[in-house]
Amino acid sequence: MKAIVLSDGGVRFNSDYASRPQPDWVPIRVLKAGICETDLQLIQGYMGFSGVLGHEFVGIAEQGRYAGQRVTGEINAACHNCPTCQAGMPTHCPKRTVLGILNHDGAFAETVWLPEENLHPIPEHVSDDAAVFVEPLAAAFQIPAQLDLSEFKNIVILGDGRLGNLCAQVCQLRHSKVLVVGKHSEKLARLQQRGIETALLDEIDDQRFADLVVDCTGSATGFPTACQFVRPRGTIVLKTTVAGEQGPNLAPIVIDEICVIGSRCGPFVPAIEALAKDELDVTSLITSRFTLEECETAFQTATAKDQLKVLFEIG
Amino acid sequence: MKAIVLSDGGVRFNSDYASRPQPDWVPIRVLKAGICETDLQLIQGYMGFSGVLGHEFVGIAEQGRYAGQRVTGEINAACHNCPTCQAGMPTHCPKRTVLGILNHDGAFAETVWLPEENLHPIPEHVSDDAAVFVEPLAAAFQIPAQLDLSEFKNIVILGDGRLGNLCAQVCQLRHSKVLVVGKHSEKLARLQQRGIETALLDEIDDQRFADLVVDCTGSATGFPTACQFVRPRGTIVLKTTVAGEQGPNLAPIVIDEICVIGSRCGPFVPAIEALAKDELDVTSLITSRFTLEECETAFQTATAKDQLKVLFEIG
Repeated sequence: MKAIVLSDGGVRFNSDYASRPQPDWVPIRVLKAGICETDLQLIQGYMGFSGVLGHEFVGIAEQGRYAGQRVTGEINAACHNCPTCQAGMPTHCPKRTVLGILNHDGAFAETVWLPEENLHPIPEHVSDDAAVFVEPLAAAFQIPAQLDLSEFKNIVILGDGRLGNLCAQVCQLRHSKVLVVGKHSEKLARLQQRGIETALLDEIDDQRFADLVVDCTGSATGFPTACQFVRPRGTIVLKTTVAGEQGPNLAPIVIDEICVIGSRCGPFVPAIEALAKDELDVTSLITSRFTLEECETAFQTATAKDQLKVLFEIG
Repeated sequence: MKAIVLSDGGVRFNSDYASRPQPDWVPIRVLKAGICETDLQLIQGYMGFSGVLGHEFVGIAEQGRYAGQRVTGEINAACHNCPTCQAGMPTHCPKRTVLGILNHDGAFAETVWLPEENLHPIPEHVSDDAAVFVEPLAAAFQIPAQLDLSEFKNIVILGDGRLGNLCAQVCQLRHSKVLVVGKHSEKLARLQQRGIETALLDEIDDQRFADLVVDCTGSATGFPTACQFVRPRGTIVLKTTVAGEQGPNLAPIVIDEICVIGSRCGPFVPAIEALAKDELDVTSLITSRFTLEECETAFQTATAKDQLKVLFEIG
C-alpha cells in the first residue's frame, strides 16, 4: 500500500509498503489524516520511531462492529492485563503500542490498523475534515479532565499554533475566559474572531500574572516562557514534547514552587460531542492539503510559520 | 567581623568584612551554622550570588523582643506590601532578599541580620546543634504542608544525604512508611537505625512503583531517576536545584503525565516542635565541625561522600 514511512534514512513516500498489524486489529481505510507537531518531532528523532507516521485520521472501518462506518481511533493500544491497565490507565500501559509513534504503523497510509475497542464512530453530520481533529481535540480536552479550570482565575495558553488554538477553544468552552499568547498576529486574529483574548508574546510586560499556563508551543523555549508568566505556586500544564537529550534547568520549578502537570492523550467522547454540537471551529484551521505522494512538500509546508493544520487527502 | 564571603574570586574567609544590613533588621550573634547543598551550588554559580554565605544557623538576638534569647530565622525577608505578599506568599515576594542566597549577607559570620518577624526563639531544651537544623527541617516539613501524604501509598525519598535524611524522617513521621533510595550504604544504615526502609539505587529493579518520589539528591541526575521510579500519573516533589543553563528533557513529564511540584522553604513551627518533642534525630547527622577560618577545608569536607552535616562553630 501507499504510505509515508520514517526510517533512519528520513521520511519518504513508499508506494508498496507492507505493514504487519496484530491479527486482531481492525483495518481502516484512511480518508484523511493530519500532520501534528509530534510528527515533526518524530522526524527530528523524538522517540526513535521508525515506521508509518500519522495518528490523526478519519477512515472507514473494514471489519468488526463498525464495518462500513466512518471512525477515528484512540492511539494507545494497551494490553489490558498489566497493573497499569488494571489501575484504569490503559493510555499508560507499559506494553502499549502508540499509533504512528511507538511500534505501531500510523495513518499516513491507505490502511491503518487498530484494536476495535480504540475506535469511535463519527456522527453523520460531522464532516471528514472535522473528524481528523478528534484526536488533537481529545488531547485538548485532557486539560479539563485533569484540572478543575474553575479553580484558576487567569489562564494563559502559550502558543498560537495547531494545538494552542484547540486548547484555547476547549479551555474557553470549559472556563469563562482565557488569554492566548503567541508570536503570530494572523494566527492570533483567528482566535480573536472566536471571541478569545490574545496578546503578542513581546507585548506582555505584566509578568507572573497567570494562575495556569498551558504550554502548547511545541518548542523548547515554551517551558522557560511559561515559568516567566506563571505566578508563584501557580500551575503549568505541559503539552510540549521536543526531541533531544537536554532541556531547561528545573530550578524555577523549585524556587517558585510551581506545579507542572504533564498532559497527553485525552478523552475522545467530549471531543466528538463538541464537534457534533458545533461548539468549536476546527475546519478553518486547515491551511493546506496534499496527497501521500507529496510527502516532502507536505512536511515542509507543515513547518512553515503561516500554516496551521496540514492534511493528507488519502481515500 | 569575620565572615565567609563568596565573590567572583571564589569563596574565602574574610577577617574584616563589613555587612550593610537594612536599618530595621535585628543583629544576631551567630553561635553555629550549617553547610547546605545550596551553599555548594551557590559556589558553583547558582543564583549568581555574592556576599556572605550561610542560611542555617542558631544565634543570640542582640536587639528587639528576643534580645538575649537563642533564635533561628526564616530566610526570606519579604516586603509585605506587594500582591504576592498580600496573597499570603511572603516567601515568594518578588522584592524579597534571601539570607545567604539573594541580596542578603548570610550566617557564616560573627553576626547575621534579619527582620524581627523572621525570628523564632529556640526552646531551652533544644540544643544549639539541633537548632541549626530548624531551617532544613522546615524545608522537609514543606512536603506535608503541600501534599496530603495519606493520599500516597508508596513514597520514595531519592537521596540519602543531608536533606534526604531529614525529608525521610519528616515524611515517615507524617506517613506510615517511606523508602529511601540512595547510593551510600553507610548513610542508608543510619536511616535503617531509625526504622526507615532503604535500598541501594542499583539494587532496585521494580521500577515505576512509586506514587510519590521526593528528589533530594541535589544532583542533576535526580530528576531523570525520579521519572524512572514514579508510576504514570504519579507525583514528583522536586527539592533539588542545581547550577547551570541546561537540565533534563521534559518529555517524560508529558508522556507519563507526571505531576511535578517544586518545594522550597517550609514552616518553622512544626520543625521546632518536632525537635522540642525529640521526635527526630538530627544531631547525629553532624559529621564535622570547623571554624570560619577553616573555610576551605570545611567546604571540601562538605562535598565528600562520607559527610552529612558540616557545621561552623562561630560564637
